[in-house]
Amino acid sequence: MAARKLTRKDLAEAAEKYKNWGRWGPNDEIGTLNHTSPEDIVAAARLVRKGKVISLALNFDQHGPQGAKSKYPSLGRVNPIHTMLRTGTDAYAGVLDHRGIRAADDMVVMPLQCGTQWDGLGHIFYENSMWNGYDCREVTSAGAQKCGIEKTKAKMVGRGVFLDLPRALGKKVLEDGYGITCSDLDTTAKKQGVEVKRGDYVVVRTGQMEAKLDAGSWDGYPGGDAPGFAFETLEWIQRTQLAALASDAPAIPITGAVGSPTNPLAIK
Amino acid sequence: MAARKLTRKDLAEAAEKYKNWGRWGPNDEIGTLNHTSPEDIVAAARLVRKGKVISLALNFDQHGPQGAKSKYPSLGRVNPIHTMLRTGTDAYAGVLDHRGIRAADDMVVMPLQCGTQWDGLGHIFYENSMWNGYDCREVTSAGAQKCGIEKTKAKMVGRGVFLDLPRALGKKVLEDGYGITCSDLDTTAKKQGVEVKRGDYVVVRTGQMEAKLDAGSWDGYPGGDAPGFAFETLEWIQRTQLAALASDAPAIPITGAVGSPTNPLAIK
Amino acid sequence: MAARKLTRKDLAEAAEKYKNWGRWGPNDEIGTLNHTSPEDIVAAARLVRKGKVISLALNFDQHGPQGAKSKYPSLGRVNPIHTMLRTGTDAYAGVLDHRGIRAADDMVVMPLQCGTQWDGLGHIFYENSMWNGYDCREVTSAGAQKCGIEKTKAKMVGRGVFLDLPRALGKKVLEDGYGITCSDLDTTAKKQGVEVKRGDYVVVRTGQMEAKLDAGSWDGYPGGDAPGFAFETLEWIQRTQLAALASDAPAIPITGAVGSPTNPLAIK
Amino acid sequence: MAARKLTRKDLAEAAEKYKNWGRWGPNDEIGTLNHTSPEDIVAAARLVRKGKVISLALNFDQHGPQGAKSKYPSLGRVNPIHTMLRTGTDAYAGVLDHRGIRAADDMVVMPLQCGTQWDGLGHIFYENSMWNGYDCREVTSAGAQKCGIEKTKAKMVGRGVFLDLPRALGKKVLEDGYGITCSDLDTTAKKQGVEVKRGDYVVVRTGQMEAKLDAGSWDGYPGGDAPGFAFETLEWIQRTQLAALASDAPAIPITGAVGSPTNPLAIK
Repeated sequence: MAARKLTRKDLAEAAEKYKNWGRWGPNDEIGTLNHTSPEDIVAAARLVRKGKVISLALNFDQHGPQGAKSKYPSLGRVNPIHTMLRTGTDAYAGVLDHRGIRAADDMVVMPLQCGTQWDGLGHIFYENSMWNGYDCREVTSAGAQKCGIEKTKAKMVGRGVFLDLPRALGKKVLEDGYGITCSDLDTTAKKQGVEVKRGDYVVVRTGQMEAKLDAGSWDGYPGGDAPGFAFETLEWIQRTQLAALASDAPAIPITGAVGSPTNPLAIK
Repeated sequence: MAARKLTRKDLAEAAEKYKNWGRWGPNDEIGTLNHTSPEDIVAAARLVRKGKVISLALNFDQHGPQGAKSKYPSLGRVNPIHTMLRTGTDAYAGVLDHRGIRAADDMVVMPLQCGTQWDGLGHIFYENSMWNGYDCREVTSAGAQKCGIEKTKAKMVGRGVFLDLPRALGKKVLEDGYGITCSDLDTTAKKQGVEVKRGDYVVVRTGQMEAKLDAGSWDGYPGGDAPGFAFETLEWIQRTQLAALASDAPAIPITGAVGSPTNPLAIK
Repeated sequence: MAARKLTRKDLAEAAEKYKNWGRWGPNDEIGTLNHTSPEDIVAAARLVRKGKVISLALNFDQHGPQGAKSKYPSLGRVNPIHTMLRTGTDAYAGVLDHRGIRAADDMVVMPLQCGTQWDGLGHIFYENSMWNGYDCREVTSAGAQKCGIEKTKAKMVGRGVFLDLPRALGKKVLEDGYGITCSDLDTTAKKQGVEVKRGDYVVVRTGQMEAKLDAGSWDGYPGGDAPGFAFETLEWIQRTQLAALASDAPAIPITGAVGSPTNPLAIK
Repeated sequence: MAARKLTRKDLAEAAEKYKNWGRWGPNDEIGTLNHTSPEDIVAAARLVRKGKVISLALNFDQHGPQGAKSKYPSLGRVNPIHTMLRTGTDAYAGVLDHRGIRAADDMVVMPLQCGTQWDGLGHIFYENSMWNGYDCREVTSAGAQKCGIEKTKAKMVGRGVFLDLPRALGKKVLEDGYGITCSDLDTTAKKQGVEVKRGDYVVVRTGQMEAKLDAGSWDGYPGGDAPGFAFETLEWIQRTQLAALASDAPAIPITGAVGSPTNPLAIK
């Protein structure tokens, strides 16, 4: 069934229906991260069985997705630029010895959306507001006075739930423009024998990142069409009371959108 | 008792005695992080009782320690410089609406030693070598071809042991130049009812960071005299088989120094 | 005679009286630089007698004025951060030889007001407008869509007139807060046997830069009280029809202020 | 006539024959810029007839040549990244008014070879030396201790001679790999009725920059094959005693190579 074309009115109604503004008080800056309780963390820790550490991070280097071909302008996002302040070649050349220390040091220049990352709730605006109703003018050239990502620094721990959608749906990869449905999400959870619960950190695999890495090119990935959550999933996100949502595709609504479902790229 | 003055010969002998080069094979790039086994991680997870998350991080902003007065030149380390690529004020001014998205985006320029951080094993050189005997020329202007911190990305999980030295020693803060002894460490562990074991991540509190934050000035902190581990603690570090060592003081030997005990700042 | 305290009304009236908005058409982006004609440039070239080149530039390095103590927050201005992409030590270490080229390369991170510089006409806003009446929203996070400094790149050549105020006034340096008067400027020009004419590039020496360099500290210089042009000099600037105005003090109205006399720091 | 393949021996012999090391004393750091005398500058000024200013600069922005497709890795060169510290949209949103100043401010991150630029004499090394025989280890991660471009700041003024090679040779553009000969240069000068003299700043047009700008793509330009000066032109460069050499192609030997003819890219 072809999705009907969504209007700004649909968006406005959904925003009104699903928004969590005020839910944790007028001064809250972390939104759905509040869903995770200390007890949830204790319980999550009990689930560790293999002791295997899996990094979900891309390296911050020149091989990242930025700069690849895209339908949309890059808005200044580039791959990290890493330079050295002192090197082993300096050491070898003897030029560090007057200080009595042979050491390397380095520096990075990087957009904060240059690789794997979490959005802060100050990332997306709805009309003239950001999450919880804060004025969008709280995000100036001097940074985010409200809802900066640093507000989450004593949070971001909880049960992770990995939903491998292409595997459950019998695909290799969710294609560009694919709208993930509530049914897709529930089917995947069921097949994997897991239930998404209040306070979970949900990681959705679309296969896109792996496909691009296999292809040896990020073309079409940054700001691309991408698979994403269908409009209806706002209900699923609200119902599951998840803490945060991450994905290997560039435009799945992440933390910010959970509180304020307004990331247009994700509305297919 | 006044410590005798150490010589390069002492250093060379200690390096020979305590180094772990080759211990995990000639191609290893993570050193003592190998001490932590999957079983250690499972056991560590079992210890979570309160579900309380405590951030050990300084914010990456202009209020960090870099640029403060120091006896030593800063070698190019500055506080993070955070700039915006798009802002809420742009949104408010209407200049983003031609794209149909109101969002903020940002960028950071920062030395990788500008706040709380982990050293990679490529940070310190001993003569013309870095950890495991790799040639120091593996760290060029193009970065660390060996022992970069990215090599640790599927590690860095384990049992954390917090040793509050000033509390155990009845002090408010360990003063600049204080040499922490093996006895200090053992006393603290004993008083806290904890035993440092193979594969632990040991976090040593000296009180320095808190003191500087209380004073409202980082003067004397970056590259300062600082308290540090006494030379003799090389034996303690080797014996405990810890995975990594962190501190709130700027010059405690961290990961790198565990494998290759050559951080001169820490040798008092 | 103590200057009376100026009000916003004074400022508004002066702005109305002296502004050049529209003078060179509604699409002009270079303002008083239009005062210099090709004939002026030919005539200026004829004046060269000694063939001596004098640089007015501070080096772009870590010894610049930014970061010095100031009564006003620095608003993100730091000294240039210079890093290398390839070095002579890399060359010496042999790590560049696989490419067959031994060369150095470098990078800079710098605020565009970190040393000697020219302001573009998009630097200062008067209410919601910039020079020539352009909407201030033309300067977004994506840069200045109007009145950027790049618009001047085929200008900025003309007769330079150096006015050494402290010398003419029998002082070593104009002190902080000193308000330079029309009389001061005329006296100086007369003593030096020069007349400021339409299209000139006027360089005003206050002695401040030399004083700070002699003191070995920039404290008080960036964003400091500084000497500046007294309010009445708006008339002098308008009358002389100069092309641009530069100084060794941080807050003399420069190009921007000539067209749009609204740099509040300069109104004493 | 096909050029014979050059060997390292040819290079070594030419370096020995043409190098200017020591010519202006052992402490010189500006090389052939010494060729221009004050009298030359006075004479050059006398030549100004039209008073027309022509910028030879590319704007420092994201539309520059870096990042284009190239046969050679970019070695970290990217186009300038320009970000704002304060904006007109901030002004419009009212968030600057607590300071009483409505102004914009900005920052740039850029490799120093990201657009039109002059090489310093510390750019290229011959074996373990740079110009005048300085040790290449003078260029460390901390920058160039010798022969940095800042050493030229009270020079770089003189007679400019523009040689439009494709025009003189009846071509639209010199093609990639074209080796400019002494005869080409002399023919062009003759056709234009100009003689290259001691102390001149010679600007050679190949048509490459214009061709890329016309094509709307810099592909093949940065680090590309490019036209360049044939090996034999070392004699021409030495004989003319020019001060500096610039071009619209990426690999013509520039200032550095004049003193020390070792830029391999330029040896066809």
